[in-house]
Parts: sequence; structure tokens; C-alpha cells
Amino acid sequence: MSDEFQIDFDRDERLGFGEAIFCAGKSTEQVQAILDAAMQQQKSLLLTRCALEMAAALGPPLDYDEVSQTAFFGATAPASDTPRIAIVAAGTSDIPVAREAERTLRFNGRQAHMILDVGVAGLWRLQARLPEIRKSAIVIAVAGMDAALPTVLGGLVPQPIIGVPTSVGYGATRSGETALMAMLSSCTPGLTVVNIDNGYGAACAALRMIARVAADAPLDQ
Amino acid sequence: MSDEFQIDFDRDERLGFGEAIFCAGKSTEQVQAILDAAMQQQKSLLLTRCALEMAAALGPPLDYDEVSQTAFFGATAPASDTPRIAIVAAGTSDIPVAREAERTLRFNGRQAHMILDVGVAGLWRLQARLPEIRKSAIVIAVAGMDAALPTVLGGLVPQPIIGVPTSVGYGATRSGETALMAMLSSCTPGLTVVNIDNGYGAACAALRMIARVAADAPLDQ
Amino acid sequence: MSDEFQIDFDRDERLGFGEAIFCAGKSTEQVQAILDAAMQQQKSLLLTRCALEMAAALGPPLDYDEVSQTAFFGATAPASDTPRIAIVAAGTSDIPVAREAERTLRFNGRQAHMILDVGVAGLWRLQARLPEIRKSAIVIAVAGMDAALPTVLGGLVPQPIIGVPTSVGYGATRSGETALMAMLSSCTPGLTVVNIDNGYGAACAALRMIARVAADAPLDQ
Amino acid sequence: MSDEFQIDFDRDERLGFGEAIFCAGKSTEQVQAILDAAMQQQKSLLLTRCALEMAAALGPPLDYDEVSQTAFFGATAPASDTPRIAIVAAGTSDIPVAREAERTLRFNGRQAHMILDVGVAGLWRLQARLPEIRKSAIVIAVAGMDAALPTVLGGLVPQPIIGVPTSVGYGATRSGETALMAMLSSCTPGLTVVNIDNGYGAACAALRMIARVAADAPLDQ
Amino acid sequence: MSDEFQIDFDRDERLGFGEAIFCAGKSTEQVQAILDAAMQQQKSLLLTRCALEMAAALGPPLDYDEVSQTAFFGATAPASDTPRIAIVAAGTSDIPVAREAERTLRFNGRQAHMILDVGVAGLWRLQARLPEIRKSAIVIAVAGMDAALPTVLGGLVPQPIIGVPTSVGYGATRSGETALMAMLSSCTPGLTVVNIDNGYGAACAALRMIARVAADAPLDQ
Amino acid sequence: MSDEFQIDFDRDERLGFGEAIFCAGKSTEQVQAILDAAMQQQKSLLLTRCALEMAAALGPPLDYDEVSQTAFFGATAPASDTPRIAIVAAGTSDIPVAREAERTLRFNGRQAHMILDVGVAGLWRLQARLPEIRKSAIVIAVAGMDAALPTVLGGLVPQPIIGVPTSVGYGATRSGETALMAMLSSCTPGLTVVNIDNGYGAACAALRMIARVAADAPLDQ
Amino acid sequence: MSDEFQIDFDRDERLGFGEAIFCAGKSTEQVQAILDAAMQQQKSLLLTRCALEMAAALGPPLDYDEVSQTAFFGATAPASDTPRIAIVAAGTSDIPVAREAERTLRFNGRQAHMILDVGVAGLWRLQARLPEIRKSAIVIAVAGMDAALPTVLGGLVPQPIIGVPTSVGYGATRSGETALMAMLSSCTPGLTVVNIDNGYGAACAALRMIARVAADAPLDQ
Amino acid sequence: MSDEFQIDFDRDERLGFGEAIFCAGKSTEQVQAILDAAMQQQKSLLLTRCALEMAAALGPPLDYDEVSQTAFFGATAPASDTPRIAIVAAGTSDIPVAREAERTLRFNGRQAHMILDVGVAGLWRLQARLPEIRKSAIVIAVAGMDAALPTVLGGLVPQPIIGVPTSVGYGATRSGETALMAMLSSCTPGLTVVNIDNGYGAACAALRMIARVAADAPLDQ
Repeated sequence: MSDEFQIDFDRDERLGFGEAIFCAGKSTEQVQAILDAAMQQQKSLLLTRCALEMAAALGPPLDYDEVSQTAFFGATAPASDTPRIAIVAAGTSDIPVAREAERTLRFNGRQAHMILDVGVAGLWRLQARLPEIRKSAIVIAVAGMDAALPTVLGGLVPQPIIGVPTSVGYGATRSGETALMAMLSSCTPGLTVVNIDNGYGAACAALRMIARVAADAPLDQ
Repeated sequence: MSDEFQIDFDRDERLGFGEAIFCAGKSTEQVQAILDAAMQQQKSLLLTRCALEMAAALGPPLDYDEVSQTAFFGATAPASDTPRIAIVAAGTSDIPVAREAERTLRFNGRQAHMILDVGVAGLWRLQARLPEIRKSAIVIAVAGMDAALPTVLGGLVPQPIIGVPTSVGYGATRSGETALMAMLSSCTPGLTVVNIDNGYGAACAALRMIARVAADAPLDQ
Repeated sequence: MSDEFQIDFDRDERLGFGEAIFCAGKSTEQVQAILDAAMQQQKSLLLTRCALEMAAALGPPLDYDEVSQTAFFGATAPASDTPRIAIVAAGTSDIPVAREAERTLRFNGRQAHMILDVGVAGLWRLQARLPEIRKSAIVIAVAGMDAALPTVLGGLVPQPIIGVPTSVGYGATRSGETALMAMLSSCTPGLTVVNIDNGYGAACAALRMIARVAADAPLDQ
Repeated sequence: MSDEFQIDFDRDERLGFGEAIFCAGKSTEQVQAILDAAMQQQKSLLLTRCALEMAAALGPPLDYDEVSQTAFFGATAPASDTPRIAIVAAGTSDIPVAREAERTLRFNGRQAHMILDVGVAGLWRLQARLPEIRKSAIVIAVAGMDAALPTVLGGLVPQPIIGVPTSVGYGATRSGETALMAMLSSCTPGLTVVNIDNGYGAACAALRMIARVAADAPLDQ
Repeated sequence: MSDEFQIDFDRDERLGFGEAIFCAGKSTEQVQAILDAAMQQQKSLLLTRCALEMAAALGPPLDYDEVSQTAFFGATAPASDTPRIAIVAAGTSDIPVAREAERTLRFNGRQAHMILDVGVAGLWRLQARLPEIRKSAIVIAVAGMDAALPTVLGGLVPQPIIGVPTSVGYGATRSGETALMAMLSSCTPGLTVVNIDNGYGAACAALRMIARVAADAPLDQ
Repeated sequence: MSDEFQIDFDRDERLGFGEAIFCAGKSTEQVQAILDAAMQQQKSLLLTRCALEMAAALGPPLDYDEVSQTAFFGATAPASDTPRIAIVAAGTSDIPVAREAERTLRFNGRQAHMILDVGVAGLWRLQARLPEIRKSAIVIAVAGMDAALPTVLGGLVPQPIIGVPTSVGYGATRSGETALMAMLSSCTPGLTVVNIDNGYGAACAALRMIARVAADAPLDQ
Repeated sequence: MSDEFQIDFDRDERLGFGEAIFCAGKSTEQVQAILDAAMQQQKSLLLTRCALEMAAALGPPLDYDEVSQTAFFGATAPASDTPRIAIVAAGTSDIPVAREAERTLRFNGRQAHMILDVGVAGLWRLQARLPEIRKSAIVIAVAGMDAALPTVLGGLVPQPIIGVPTSVGYGATRSGETALMAMLSSCTPGLTVVNIDNGYGAACAALRMIARVAADAPLDQ
Repeated sequence: MSDEFQIDFDRDERLGFGEAIFCAGKSTEQVQAILDAAMQQQKSLLLTRCALEMAAALGPPLDYDEVSQTAFFGATAPASDTPRIAIVAAGTSDIPVAREAERTLRFNGRQAHMILDVGVAGLWRLQARLPEIRKSAIVIAVAGMDAALPTVLGGLVPQPIIGVPTSVGYGATRSGETALMAMLSSCTPGLTVVNIDNGYGAACAALRMIARVAADAPLDQ
């Protein structure tokens, strides 16, 4: 099986965040073999889309979170909350995706600030939390259905906003495609978007910003 | 040519609003023949999607509006503004559709209240006009792109809101399909929607509400 | 968990209908926590898309209807049938959606009039019920497949018609998208539409009309 | 150029209707070369989607109809109206497609009966013409937008109904795809459908029925 | 429950084929209630999309066929094979749909002639059966994937061909939409098409042709 | 006309970049009126999607660039190139979009570094420019067709990468939707995406990063 | 059942590769009947999409591979690796499809060379294997998500490249349609593509090349 | 302008076919600049999608073909017809795409054999040309609409078949997407496909086969 995968153990050095394994398309045997290789090299790994059954079958024990379907293998660095990252979610059903982003950041040494259930169908909920949001350097905005949250938010605050459309809902939501297309069609300038339900990708985008744009980021010569 | 159309001159009596001719798929000869039939029967007609060239070629002279591509043939009743109808449009490019709704209402004896360029990417613009909107019995909300306006508005006011998605924009807006799907996917309860760019249909929906639900609407026995 | 949701207990006052919880994307624990919060505040709640298993697991006992997958938590006001609302459904398979609309209205103090299995493939069925439909102030028309019912009905009666496309059928029905697009493309003027299978939304749209347009609706000054 | 096309001059014998040339994708030179070949073999041809400019440039003079963009080259047989074929069209904008069907039938020796502007948004128009429709052996039903006409008609009469969706309208009509899908999703059993705007194909389907199913059709041994 | 359905027991008289119940969207209780009503009126019924479990739970015993998921309730007329109907299927996976057509014809007193696994990827298989096909008055052609069978067949024989696209395959077949669109796009003139997997509808279309176009079909005066 | 638009002259202060007018959906009269309002308030404006004809008709003279269809109205600040922004474009046809991004940055006081025609179908072209790219803080990657450029680039460098899919190509490119979906589906973590052809939006996203994340960005207290 | 299938036992002679049975749409009884027919004629068969349960139920024992869901029935020729075929796969989740291609080749007497997990998000992985790839006559490139592998590879090597898009991923990957469209939109000239997840088809395409184009391929006179 | 393009003058050496310029998205100035660079380096170029107006404006004179919109700049090698390549086209409207393939081959030193207007709706036309097709080493099959030609052909002959779907037709043809999907869904094994209307790409695929698989192809060591 060893010729079936090539783990990118140098990713942290090259890109600024650690290797992660997307488990959904893999067998438990494949993931276990990857963990074994990581253990041999004394590397940590982040597992995403890891179902409860797979997590229970893997060893040694992982730091597993069922809501986000993520697991940490190996040690993680202590988390810093500077620069501050806010994760804003529109509805209760968006929480698993928001948590995937939070856990990805935590695995990579960043503590995010969670602001949940503030969709713009009840505008006052968002308005009450604006002061907290303004204190952040980066905002990850998680929203499904018509996904109007990033549009409204982006018109009010100057932060970079990484939109994560989610697949909640039915019918016209088209499994998240409407949320995705609505975010891309926003008349608020400067929003960016990642794939549907991709909390992991949004977190990595934030890490790239911190690695290269933030105050303490060394530029190549 | 007389067997090619059957004008519904009793629509007003039956449905509460007058006959309208959608000109886009018809030749000038066909529309002129319809006008001639209306003149013979001393009936008024509303023309929609009537291009400037066609309007200029038709006779006798019409009450034509180029922005909305609508024309009135024959006399129209004086317009009442009770119950009050607000037409709210998100952007400057949505004005032709908003105007089509306004002109349809005017042709049928209703004067609407226009509130333009109040998209939620600049939330304060909408907030400044909320008192006016609250005074209405019915709201027609015209918006393209991600079409977040009705979602935000519907969370703030109890009015029936008739959403009109528009085809402005490019790429992910998909000629208005994203706006349409976003409105249908709204987490604000009780929004209703008409076809893309269909200002005429939204006005007719408002007229149906007035005809049957409003204070002065006689119910059938 | 208390930071994971923000219940809109003032919705009734603000919008004219009570808070509802869409259960499909939530865990039983989340819904139970919401019920507990409602009980503390002595508020009633409507649950939609609540599966039988979830309803059985929740406490205290709910007024549950399996066909529509809806539940009432707490007391509901006695239902009035003025102004009269008709719910017209095209086929037997559309009944769950029709019932969701009926139950939403009942939770909010309105008794609807049900007219079932009157699709226009057998036109005489609809024609036999027209007198009943004409007596209503508002019509909710539930139909799947080619969804021709609202088109035919809207050409015959002046009521506001709220179309609810349903996801019944296979192949070219595209899980309700054909019904949705057909309703939006109707040549009958003044139809409005809500999301596929969204009986709840159609009921809320009717409640908005009653709240603001009906005879006894007080307008803001 | 002679190796660029292979005209099917035996089609009439094999399939029961004559060769037709779809001009839209061809140059005037190509079509002229085809006409020359037909003339040499003393064969008649039907031209479809033949624009006015192309028709004017071709020689010798053709029997051309601008509305349907069809032309007859060569002699056509006298047209019989037994068995009777009805072409029913929902709106004025559907007439060009209905006429293409009529002209295709005429070219092949059949006289159709036209019933225009009887869409079901005004149901009484169709009802007034039902006796005429019942006298036919075959019905071609041309309709765009939500295309409810064949559904209603097919529930009332036992004739084979060949649905022709048209591309009229805008937005949710999706250039005729909604009409097409609605016809295919009809709950009226036994409707069949051809491509969008394909009046020619519908006529050929009727000719196949007459050739093989009709009273006077000889069966192969 | 009796107000939840309105069975069309006069369909046979009106349209020439008996009432059928589409079971997929209905509960066993609903279908049983419909059977009870049919028994009371001494009418036969055809059940389609009736799963094995439902068929086993219904009473009294039905004439059930698992492959086509169809059942006959009550007596059926002896089946005639004049005029001759051929059902031609491209692949082994298309057999359930072909059989649904065959059983629908049998329920309505017509015996079809089955010609299976003759897809044009192995052209000689079709060519070997052409003499049989030529003896028919009507051809039902069932095919999935690229659905080239009706195109090739329709170029060779003059019969009316009712295409039934099927949902077999994966990826680019798009659950039958590619087969559907390919049939509609055929360059063979005069093909007609029904919904994906709709063997029942194809059979009804054939019955309509026989009822009105065939040699022994009485025309209305 | 003054009630038809509400210019956001405070955007710069609130969001960190100036107001821009999307001209494509507006008449020359509307844009001129907006310019007049800006002149009165002594504000600068960026015009995007401004066709040559419109630019020529507007006054006073603008700083116009035909390739990107952008114009500057009023004074612009001197451009800084710290932090360094690289705009990387895959093909010659992507240049107009790349230039729209560059001009938007210049209007807002940032000088970008252009690296053109380095698509990965000729990998050595990109590899030769990697040292320049590594020196940047932010990368805007413009690519159409299969849009593989950001995937390859993002695996090699740690910069935040803002993908701009373009609408070049034909057929399977689907006017840029394939490029958009490919970027969103990238297995390189941390890419973000804006709307098709939206060079303006990508530039604004970069400006948001600089405003809030960069070394010299003051955070709110 | 014997009239339900017509096995193409001469395919090997006619096309250069043996008959294969696609099991996904067939019952175990149907597949067993096909095996029995093959045994009678002493022919070998390849089974694809054969689930573990079906393989276990079939007899006599097959050479079964669970990863690729393929089985060999009967003897297979010894495998040659000249001309050399490379199967290159982008990710671990693409292995089942790659293996289906490999097994199809092996069944037809060709031994492929597997190069796995070399997606271009980690470019160095591909670059390390280029010398091996250059030694091949034909390359099968298996990739999902944005499927950039064939584009990069095809720009570097002159081999014919048969792209196989896979259905791995979620959201914007659209079950492989994005990978498919991206490969077709590639700016690398001369790539060809087969259906999503169709490892079998890619192998057959390679066999066609070998049969007719390779050094030892006899041409028809 | 010299930094706006990077011509791949070594492509011939690396991939086995010369550089080509896709003119559709470029200005005449850009293409002229590319020609000037080629002239300086004494290289030949193939121009594709080069409109008549652009070809006329470029200098020095080109070897231009209006039907295929291709031009040769510089000298081309004498064309060999071994191994033999057949280009088979289904209809007259497919000729421009077929010719683009032929011209691309000619530019790269290969003479193709053209077999036109042999679509399977008239099967005998294809059958008459089978002997010629069997003599080829490679077949390029150009077809639009339902694109059944490659399916039928691939079942009869063992050659590698490169399918080129075309955008001819209307309605359900979806600008060639139906042809594309039908080819990919073919039940004939081993077909490969290129982008819609991409005659150029099909020719390059054939050149790759010849370069690496053909008798005289040297393999890398």
C-alpha cells in the first residue's frame, strides 16, 4: 500500500500549515497506513471528514470532534489569537462547517473567535455583534441558503471576508450551489469564496494571509 | 390575421386588472391589429416589452415610457395610492424593472411609491427608508445579483413582499437565475417571488391582493 | 450550547407570525435545547421537517402530525377562518406539503379550507370546486410535475395565488425544479411562488397578506 | 462541393415523407447546390429555417412563407385532410412553429386544421374549440412558457397528442427548456414530445402515424 | 382519507385506457384505500412503481410483476396483437422499463412484441430483427446512455417511434437526461419522446394512436 | 434622476477603497449624472465595464484604458508597491481581466506587478517567474478554461492566492463556469475565488487584506 | 431469460478486446445466466462494477478484485508490457478507477505501469516520475476535482493522454462533472477524455491504439 | 506588448506538433505581433478561429481557408498519408469542424482522408464507406445533435476513434452539450472525446498517437 500515497510532510514549511488528510474517499486501512507513516516520521496530521466509526477504529487515540468530523493526530502547537480571526455563522445548521474552520485553525496554532446564528433574516443579531467583528483582522463568514450574510457584513466592515457557502436547506438551495453563486454575485466588493461546506479551506486561506500579509510575516528576499 | 389572437377584454372584470400585450415575440403588424381590435371595442390596453421602434410605428399615439418599455393605449383611470404600495429597488440597473411594475399599477389605477438604490451592500440606505416602507400595505422588492434585499427587508417588516429578481450582472449571476434561486432560498419566511425581470407580474400580484384581501374588497357569496 | 442559537421570540410581534424551527439540519439535542429555552420564556414554537423519531424523543409531548412532519410546542390560539384561505392541491402526493401549510396557518390562528386531488389533467375535478375557491380571500396552490394547476386557476379567479411547487415525480420533473420553473413561467399574470415543498413559507406569505392587506389590518402611521 | 452532401431522395418511399433541408447551418451556396441536385433528379424539397435573405438569393423562385421560414422547391401533391390533423397553439408567439408544422404537412400532402391562441390561462378559449379538436385523428399541440395546454387537452380528449414546446418568453422559461420539461412531466398519460420549436418534427411524427397506423395504411407482410 | 383522492374511473371511456395509480409517492394505506374504492365500483386498476413490499401488503392478491414493479387489480381484457406493437430495448438494463410498457399494454388489452438487447453499439443485432420490426404498426424504443437506437431505427423504418430514454449508466449519462436530450436532438425526423423511464406513458401514447388513428378507430362526428 | 442613485462617497473611509461605478447596466446619462455628483463633492470615482463609446461621451476627460474598460475620474493617490501584489495571468486572452485588477489597485494607491502568459500547459514559463512571485505578499491569479494555474501555484508558494476565473474559450468552458468550478474544486488548500472576469473584485479583496492584515494596518480597539 | 441478452463473443476478433459485462444495472441471476452462456461457448469475460456480494454469489469462483470491483471469468492471456502503458493517478481516492483500467488491460493481455498520488497540487511528485512516464507509448491520466494533472502532463510529454475524470470530492466538484469539463477545456492540445470514473473505457481506448496504430499492428488492405 | 505573450516555439520538438494561435480572444494587433515574433525566429505558425477580417488585415499574406477559419503562416512540410487518418463527419453543418482537423493535420505534415455527410440517420451512407474507413489507422468522427455516429462506427471497426461533438442544431442540442454527453455516454467501449467544435484538438490527439504509438515512433530510452 505504501505506493498508494505520498504524504506532504514538508507542507508546513513550504505553505505555512500542516498536512491534512481528507478521509471521506478513503478506507480505514488507507488512513491507518497514513497515520503509521506519520508516526514513523514524528509528524502531526489533521484528519477532515472523518466519520465517527472511522475515528473509533483508528489508533492510537485521536483528539476527535464529532460535530466537525475532524481529528488531530499528534501534538499541536499552543494556539495564539493574534491576529484575531472571527468565524461568523448564519444559522445553527452551519455550525459543523464553522467548527471545521475553527479546528483547522487550532491545529495550526490559531484560536478563532466564534459568532454563531447571526443570519441577516434577523438583522439585529448581527448588529449586536459588530463591535466584536470589527476587532478582527480576518473574518470567515459561513452561510447557506441565500447566503446574504457576507454581503451585508462586507458593506459594513473593511476586513477581508472569506465566504463559505453551506449545503443546508432544500429545493432551490440546490445543495449549496445557490449560496455559492449568491456569494460570488455579491455587489459588496472584495468578498472571496471557497467551495461549499469547505471550512477547512477557509481556515487555510486565513493562514495564508497571516503567513504572508500579517505584521510579523517575513517576506522572501 | 384575426384568427391569430383572442384578446381577453373581460379580464378586468374577471381578475381585477386589464388586458396586457407582451410585445417582444410579436410583429408590429400583429400588435397593430390587436390595437385596432381594442379601439373597435373601446377598450384600453397595456403594452409591455414594447421597443421604441415598435412604439413609434404604432398608431394612434401611445403614452409610452422608454425606460420600462411600456405603453398605455386608451384611457386609464385616475390612480389611487390607497392601499399604499412600495416598490423598493436594490440598484440603479434594476430601475427599468421597477418602473415596469409602477406603470402596470398606474395603468390599473394604483399609484406606487418608489424607493430606489437601497441595496443591502450599503445597509444604511435601506435603514433610512424603513419608515416609508412600514407605511405600505404591500412591498415589491426588485433586486439582482445575490438579491439579498428581500431577505433583510422581510426580517424587519411584516408586509407581504413580492420579490422580483433581475438579470443584471455577469458570470455567477447567470442572467438572474442566482437572484431568483437566492430569493426562493431565503431564510426569511413568507417571501414570494415572480419570474426574472417580471415587474409586470409583481404588479398584478399586488393587484390581486388588493382586489381580494384589502379592506374594501367584496368577497363572493 | 446556548451560544449556538438565538431564538426570535419577538417575531410574532414584529412580523405577525410565531417563531418556527426547521429541524431537518439539527440534532435532537439542539432542538431540545431550543424547546427548553422556549419553555423558560413561556413561548410557543412550531417545528417543521421534524421526523417521527425526533418528535418521539423530544419532551414534553408535542402536538405532532406525521404526514406534514410538523409539531406544535405550547399553546396555540383558537383558529379563525376569516378571511378565508383555500389550500388547493393537485395530487395525492402533494398532501404532505399542503398539510404543512395548513398546520402552519393553524399554529398562527387561521383555519384553512382544503381542496385535494384536483389537478388539471382531470379538469372537471377543479371545475366542481370552483365555487368554494371563489369564496376565499387567498389561495395556496400546491402542485408538482408540470404544475399547471395555478396557471389554470389564476385565469379563472381573481384571488392572490401562492404557488408551491412540489418534488413529486421522476426524470424530467427534476425533483421539483420543473414545477418551480413552470409556475414562474406561467402566462397567467400575478401568480407568486415559494420554494419547492415549502408549505410553511406559503402559509407565512398568506399571514403577511392578512396582517397588512386585510380589512382589519391596522396600518402604521 | 458535391462530396459535401448526400441527399436522401428515397426518403419518401422509405419513410413516407419527402427530403427536407435544414438551412440554418448552411451557406446559400450549399443550399443552392442541393437545389441543383434536386432539380437534376426532378425531385421536390422542403426547406426549413430558411431566412428571407437566403430564400431571395436562391433560384428558381420558391414557394416561400416568411412566418414559418419554410420554402417548397418543386411540385407538391394536392393536400388531403383525411385523416384530420389539428394544430393547436397556445399563444400568438407560437404561430411560427405551428405554421412550420402546417407547411411540412402540406408539402407532404396533408391539410391541417389550425386552432390558434387557445392557451389555458384563458380556459374558455380552449373549451370553445373542443368540438373541432375532437373531430381530429391526431393533435399537434404547440405551447411555450409553462406549456400547460397539452396536459389539459390530453385529459379531455383521447387523440394522440404531439407536444411541441416553444422558446418564447424570458427568464425562467429558459429558452423553451421549461416548456419541454413540463410537457415531459405531465401527469396526463400518453403525451409525446419533440424538440423545442420543432414544428417540422411534429408534422413528421403525424405523417408516421398516418403512414402506418391509419385506416388506409398497408402493413408489411 | 376519502377526500384525499378522486379516482378517474371514467378514463377508459374518455381516453381509451384505464385508470392507473402511481404508487411511488403514496403510502400503503393510501393505495389500499384506492383499491377498496375500486373494488366497491367493480373497476380494474393498474398499479405502477409498486415496490415488492407494498404489493405484498396490499389485498386481495394482485397480478404482480417484480421486474416492472407493476400490478393488475381486477380483471383485464384478453389481449389482442392487432395492430401489432413492437417494444425494442437497447440493453439488458432497459428491460424493466420495456416491461412496464408491455404490462401497461396488456392491462389495456394489447399484446406487444418484445425485441431486447439490440443496441446499435452492435449493429448486426438490430439488423437481424428489422423484418420483425417492419411488421409492426407502432414501435416503442427503450434506450439509455447515448440512446442512439431510435435515431438509427427511425432512419430505416416508417413506423411511428415512441422513444423512452432510461436512467441506466453513470457520470455523463446524468440519470437519463443525456438519453432524453439525445433523442430529442435526433436528426431522424418524426421521433417522439416521453419522460425518462416512463414505459407506462409510452404505452399510453401507443393506445392513443390505436384509439384514434388505427383502421378500426371510429371518429367523432 | 437624482433619486435614482445614492453614491457611497464614504466607502473609502469605511472599507478602505473608493467608490466604483459598474457602467455596463447604466445609460450614459446615468453615469454622467453620477460624475456630476462626484464633481460637486470633489470625490474621485473608478468606472468599470465602461465601453469606449461611453467613455468618449462622458466629460470632463477621463483617464481611460480601453483594454480593461476602466476609467479614473478625478485625482488618484501616488501608487505604492509595498506590500507587493503580483497579478499572474495564464493566457493572452486573460489580460483584460488582469488589467482591470491592476487599474483598480492603481486607483486605490497600489502598484501591482504583472506576470503574463504563464499558464501551466507550458510549465517552464511559470517556473521561470517563481522567484518574482515569491517576493509578493498577495497573488491574484487570473485564468480561464481549466484554470489549473492557481492549483499549481498554490502548491508551490505560501501566499494568499485570489483566483479570478475568466470566460475565455468555448464549448466545455461554459463561459467561465468550468474555470470557476475548477478553482473551487482545487485540491490545493487555501485558494479563494471571486466571480468570473471580476478583476475589480480581486483587487478589492487584496485591498481588504492590506487594510486589515498587513504590517502597517491599525486594528480597531 | 435467454432472449434478454445477446453476448458479443466475437468482439475480440472485431475490435481487439474481449466482451465485458457491466454488472451495476443487472441482477445476480442475469449475470449468472451470462456466465453460463460464456462457459458453454468456452469464452472468457470481464465483469465491471461487480459488487462484492454479487461476486461472492456467482459461480464458479472468479478472479475478483474488490478495489476495482472487477472480476475475470475464464482464462486470460499472459500480459505483455510492450508497448508500455502508464496509468497515472492524481490522488489516493482515484485508485479504484486507475485499478479498473489496469485490470481491463490485464484481462486483454497488457500489463500497465502504475504511478499513483502525483497530483499537481504537489508538483514535485509528478516531476520525480516524469522519466518513467516518458518511457511509455500511451498514458492514462486519472484525476478528480479540478483535474489539472493531464493539462500539466500533456504540456511536458508527447504521449497520447487519455484523461479519466473521477467523481471524488464534494460541492463544486459536482460528482466529477467539473473534472470532466476541466479536462475538455484544457489548453494543452491533444488530450482526449472518457466518461467520469470510466477506467474501463480508457483501457479500451488504449487497446484500440495498440491494435491499429502500434508498430506491430497489421493494417487492412 | 512583448511581455503579453510567450510563444512556444519548441513545441514541435517537445510534443510533436507545431505552435498554434487561437485567435478568437485576441486583437489583430496581438496576433500581428505574434506573427512578427515568429518571422524573426523563422518559425511557422497555425492560426485557428481566425475570422476573414482578421486574416485580411494580417501580413504577410497567409494560406487562409475561410470554411475552417484557419491560416498557415510560414512554410509547411509536405504531407504524408501514412499512417492513414480518416475524418468522418455526420452532416453538412459539421464540415467546418472537420476541415479544421484536416488543416491542422496538413500543417503538421499529415494528409487526412475526408468522408462527409454519413450520419447514421441514413445508415446506408456510412455502410457504403466502411471499407475506406477500415483502411485507416485512426478515425476522427465529427458529429452534432445526438452524435450517434461514433457509437455505431466504434462497434463496427477496431480503430481508435476520436469523437468531436459539434454545436449544430437548436433547443435540446444545447449548443453541442448533448452531443458531447452522448459521446461520453456511449456504450461502445474505447471512444475518446475532445471539446465541442474542437477539430484542432482532435487532430493533435491523432498526432500524439502517431508520434508515440505508430510503427515508426522512436521510444525514449
